[in-house]
Amino acid sequence: MLNVAIVGASGYTGLELIRLLYCHPEVAVTCLTSEQSAGRKISDIFPTLRGRCDLTLENLEPVRVAEKADLIFTALPHKAAMEVVPTFLKLGKHVIDLSADYRLRDPDVYGAWYEPHLNPANLKKAVYGLAEIRRSKIRGARLVANPGCYPTSIILALAPLLKKGLIHSGDIIADSASGVTGAGRAAKVDSLYCEVNEGFRAYGAGGTHRHIPEIEQELSLLAGESLLITFTPHLVPMDRGILSTVYTRPRQATTTEQLVKLYQDFYKGEPFVRVLPQGSLPSTAFVRGSNFCDLAPLVDSRTGRIIIVSAIDNLVKGASGQAVQNMNIVCGFPETMGLEGLALFP
Amino acid sequence: MLNVAIVGASGYTGLELIRLLYCHPEVAVTCLTSEQSAGRKISDIFPTLRGRCDLTLENLEPVRVAEKADLIFTALPHKAAMEVVPTFLKLGKHVIDLSADYRLRDPDVYGAWYEPHLNPANLKKAVYGLAEIRRSKIRGARLVANPGCYPTSIILALAPLLKKGLIHSGDIIADSASGVTGAGRAAKVDSLYCEVNEGFRAYGAGGTHRHIPEIEQELSLLAGESLLITFTPHLVPMDRGILSTVYTRPRQATTTEQLVKLYQDFYKGEPFVRVLPQGSLPSTAFVRGSNFCDLAPLVDSRTGRIIIVSAIDNLVKGASGQAVQNMNIVCGFPETMGLEGLALFP
Amino acid sequence: MLNVAIVGASGYTGLELIRLLYCHPEVAVTCLTSEQSAGRKISDIFPTLRGRCDLTLENLEPVRVAEKADLIFTALPHKAAMEVVPTFLKLGKHVIDLSADYRLRDPDVYGAWYEPHLNPANLKKAVYGLAEIRRSKIRGARLVANPGCYPTSIILALAPLLKKGLIHSGDIIADSASGVTGAGRAAKVDSLYCEVNEGFRAYGAGGTHRHIPEIEQELSLLAGESLLITFTPHLVPMDRGILSTVYTRPRQATTTEQLVKLYQDFYKGEPFVRVLPQGSLPSTAFVRGSNFCDLAPLVDSRTGRIIIVSAIDNLVKGASGQAVQNMNIVCGFPETMGLEGLALFP
Amino acid sequence: MLNVAIVGASGYTGLELIRLLYCHPEVAVTCLTSEQSAGRKISDIFPTLRGRCDLTLENLEPVRVAEKADLIFTALPHKAAMEVVPTFLKLGKHVIDLSADYRLRDPDVYGAWYEPHLNPANLKKAVYGLAEIRRSKIRGARLVANPGCYPTSIILALAPLLKKGLIHSGDIIADSASGVTGAGRAAKVDSLYCEVNEGFRAYGAGGTHRHIPEIEQELSLLAGESLLITFTPHLVPMDRGILSTVYTRPRQATTTEQLVKLYQDFYKGEPFVRVLPQGSLPSTAFVRGSNFCDLAPLVDSRTGRIIIVSAIDNLVKGASGQAVQNMNIVCGFPETMGLEGLALFP
Repeated sequence: MLNVAIVGASGYTGLELIRLLYCHPEVAVTCLTSEQSAGRKISDIFPTLRGRCDLTLENLEPVRVAEKADLIFTALPHKAAMEVVPTFLKLGKHVIDLSADYRLRDPDVYGAWYEPHLNPANLKKAVYGLAEIRRSKIRGARLVANPGCYPTSIILALAPLLKKGLIHSGDIIADSASGVTGAGRAAKVDSLYCEVNEGFRAYGAGGTHRHIPEIEQELSLLAGESLLITFTPHLVPMDRGILSTVYTRPRQATTTEQLVKLYQDFYKGEPFVRVLPQGSLPSTAFVRGSNFCDLAPLVDSRTGRIIIVSAIDNLVKGASGQAVQNMNIVCGFPETMGLEGLALFP
Repeated sequence: MLNVAIVGASGYTGLELIRLLYCHPEVAVTCLTSEQSAGRKISDIFPTLRGRCDLTLENLEPVRVAEKADLIFTALPHKAAMEVVPTFLKLGKHVIDLSADYRLRDPDVYGAWYEPHLNPANLKKAVYGLAEIRRSKIRGARLVANPGCYPTSIILALAPLLKKGLIHSGDIIADSASGVTGAGRAAKVDSLYCEVNEGFRAYGAGGTHRHIPEIEQELSLLAGESLLITFTPHLVPMDRGILSTVYTRPRQATTTEQLVKLYQDFYKGEPFVRVLPQGSLPSTAFVRGSNFCDLAPLVDSRTGRIIIVSAIDNLVKGASGQAVQNMNIVCGFPETMGLEGLALFP
Repeated sequence: MLNVAIVGASGYTGLELIRLLYCHPEVAVTCLTSEQSAGRKISDIFPTLRGRCDLTLENLEPVRVAEKADLIFTALPHKAAMEVVPTFLKLGKHVIDLSADYRLRDPDVYGAWYEPHLNPANLKKAVYGLAEIRRSKIRGARLVANPGCYPTSIILALAPLLKKGLIHSGDIIADSASGVTGAGRAAKVDSLYCEVNEGFRAYGAGGTHRHIPEIEQELSLLAGESLLITFTPHLVPMDRGILSTVYTRPRQATTTEQLVKLYQDFYKGEPFVRVLPQGSLPSTAFVRGSNFCDLAPLVDSRTGRIIIVSAIDNLVKGASGQAVQNMNIVCGFPETMGLEGLALFP
Repeated sequence: MLNVAIVGASGYTGLELIRLLYCHPEVAVTCLTSEQSAGRKISDIFPTLRGRCDLTLENLEPVRVAEKADLIFTALPHKAAMEVVPTFLKLGKHVIDLSADYRLRDPDVYGAWYEPHLNPANLKKAVYGLAEIRRSKIRGARLVANPGCYPTSIILALAPLLKKGLIHSGDIIADSASGVTGAGRAAKVDSLYCEVNEGFRAYGAGGTHRHIPEIEQELSLLAGESLLITFTPHLVPMDRGILSTVYTRPRQATTTEQLVKLYQDFYKGEPFVRVLPQGSLPSTAFVRGSNFCDLAPLVDSRTGRIIIVSAIDNLVKGASGQAVQNMNIVCGFPETMGLEGLALFP
């Protein structure tokens, strides 16, 4: 039995970790922390948990947390994560960090998009936890940087094409849309029901969203050359889900049929990637609550562009589910353990 | 391994049965039928299932279905169920019927609210499958009539009071509200997104809803006397959930504290009923995707009325989850097997 | 041209007043105030207004406001209203107050449900602004207490029966459900999109909601005797609308047909009350954005109860629309002026 | 007073025409037709209209319709429109056609995307009714082809750039998302509440959507050269609104500031186009129920791409509101008459 702590448990990704880990046969959740709600029962904050998980939230004292757990999920805002992760590592624990703090290899890039990095030493040791492209490095890793939600949806959409060198790497546009859980659980007017409901909007347009350097880093590694992308996120009035519609240009003319074959081969055996048959398109509704990434590559034969549509649940494959997948790989459990639940539809 | 068939698999309760049974370690789903979609893969209709359940839907030929399964879930409209259930029973199968056809003990009552009953012989053998009040009869039953969604939420709300004879049985009002899955998956203008969204309405008011005789039958049995209720269903713009707010009058003055105690005692040990602590009220959001019924009894001390608020997921405790619970009891599996998943929130 | 100020303009009722008043041919909006957003343009807060109403929000300095306006709408929280209304009245202005501060005739009742009343002197002068039952007193009034949203929906539902003495006044239950704008625009976790969406819940059950004394006061006046009600509010995942389902008992057996006739006669000529034909039920969707109250009275012949279903838009007939209606009556404009817009559906 | 008929009144665009025209001081609606619902009152289908518009729906007999109206709005499916429009024109009526039948100048293009055109003679006489780029030709026109919803949002987004020759016309991607009213009111499983709610999906990707030739025709005319676009529509779980995010490349480097200035100059004096200040982005929520198109052009300085985000209400500026705007221009009414209503928010 693996003892596990969740640091920052009172947010949506924390709750989702609990939901998934309570169905995992090899895990015991032994410690939950929350800055704002220490002393309260987690089931008072999230009544879904009542009778199943009634742990009391603790203050975040890293040494005490480390005493209770073999592996720690850090579901904290950026900066807060790197203030505690070094302690966990020093004490010999495995860490799966859901923040942005260990995703960017270059501390200067982190500094340019966030603020000066406090822990560059561990940056080098961190493994970017996108299993589909870096599974072998995740095995046994001490520190896994769990990928961001938008990056997951976009990197999986482009990996086959970039890896094979089939597209113009200078011509990539990712147009994405996220459910509102992506904005977290902080009390802000912008996240109020009546502000979000019945509206669709773009935000952070024009190259300003902080997921951009993460996406570019990973796409560049896949391409073997440095590349830039145009990325526009949108907000959808729904709880969960990210759909990315990615546009690019092939080096040589291709067909939808060829692309589908390419993607099916590339992702053969992947337990959580489903390449849809030609003619089908993904919906976030079809992955809700599951760890799947659904992909549909296709060609617009009139203009020659390639379009790839990808769908994930931002809280599962885009955050907590992927974190559990990484835990499974790190610890040598079957990769799908605890993640077999089917999507909830409707 | 129990081989199981789902007759009428292309509706929402059928899909929910698949979702739950695929997480059940003792069950194999061997046969799915659909009148409208025979020949198509279930995963083409519900892409959530892709890669996990790709069975082909079959025509409903009872003998062939029976050959493939030990236990059959019938998720058909009323009347269609009683056209096939007798064959399944004759062939020695267990049947859990999610329609209304075997819920009413008196065929004349069925006739008055629906149409003449075709199979009164089996009516007597059917067990009304609300485990919390009839668990012992469900064990080993050949035919379980799975309760309706509204009745489940209302009967569980009133059982402790009626069983103990604490209220005026002539003064019961149940005001309920359901998510849109309750209307099924038929293509009707009234169920279109834009007709339902951003509106809240009553329907079937004034004693006309067909769940009334079922509710009254079971409440009368609990009370030991014949009673009538006033019941008003409403439609909520959301996918899942039923919340019932039930009003009644105590024979003797009581307090919220006493009621909470009474309910906690009555439902002690029940795996799927959660009596909330005083001061908390249920939300359908907190049971979404789970088999829980959340209950909060309270007293309006100004008027002396008792109010009980109950919440279920209409597709789970109100249909398919309760059906799996009944299967577990019928077959001697642990009652919670396959139903341990936590609610999906948000 | 009537010069009008809106005090507390940055909330949803303030915005709705602007929306309606900008279509009113006899009104000029000359002043908007906001405590939190003074100095900002209202159209920066509500971009719907851009290019149509770009006034700058001012601090609430009562004398300065009064200089700019003949009539003032106070859309403030309770208590804040009675801190400024006396000044407006002293300066000879008309006030239509959308808060609870002047709705309860008895300052002790106010004290029991809210806090000690600061301005009992003006309480006596205030007219409760439900035009359908008190139109003549509203004409020329200096201070109109604009009714609450739930009270409007419930009083209009019961007025014909109580006025005619047809029901047992001790047996009234009002089960109501409101859209989320009813919770206002404050940044609270409970009002976040993901906390509200896809859930239906009761709140303030058991006789604790502050609209109760207002409802009971007005129903008692109609009945000519003191009465108490049981009232349960619910929260619906939608922006706008209140539906109330009201249960009571007739003194003498009656029929739906008789009730519909009674209601049609009672509300004959009322521009904003629609009594639906027998067989139709209201939906909040059908009044969204309009000042209508839709009513359907009916009899449950099995139990003898009377049920009345009423629907309003909580921001229009339940707040700002009714306030404009009151302004029209106060000032002698045609009562429907500026309120002729049809509901927005879908 | 202009007598107006609406042919195909029982759909959402028909209803929206009624909503708008009933606030228009110079118009009387004299005739409504519906194939499916002839003989029923329009207010039985859309209870929002009860008491305000209770006209009985008639069969579509063109000559009888023409007798009752000076101007006819045809809100029919494609093909059905061109079966009746010739009769209306022959009888000397003005027609504003909301279908696709008269939008494409070249009948062969129509044939390639739809089916053989039945009425090429009138194609030449039809004026494409996008007032912002073709106002002078609309004046007095007999037949106005009212633009499609997606085309309206995309053409307005690109017109300033193409007209001035500032972009590479071969490099245009339009990524759009629509509310569900865009799918109409037909009873289809795909449009059911539970199929649409809580999901975001692409559809018609890869150059197959029938609005493409319309968009390309108009953009090519603006550019003065033939061009192709890549267009991907998406479905958003909300009633109304289209947001288009358009990507292109400038011929010469530019800045957001320059673009905003360019757009503000280009659309100066346009009553229904709002160019947002730098730093603001549109939301469909801010135009809901209004005839505005909100535009935000910007530059992604990292990649050099231009991004334009545009928002309209698909039923208003994307259909019925624009049709009323065209009627105003055709008939010499002030262009904003009947369209002054502010957006409904929330």
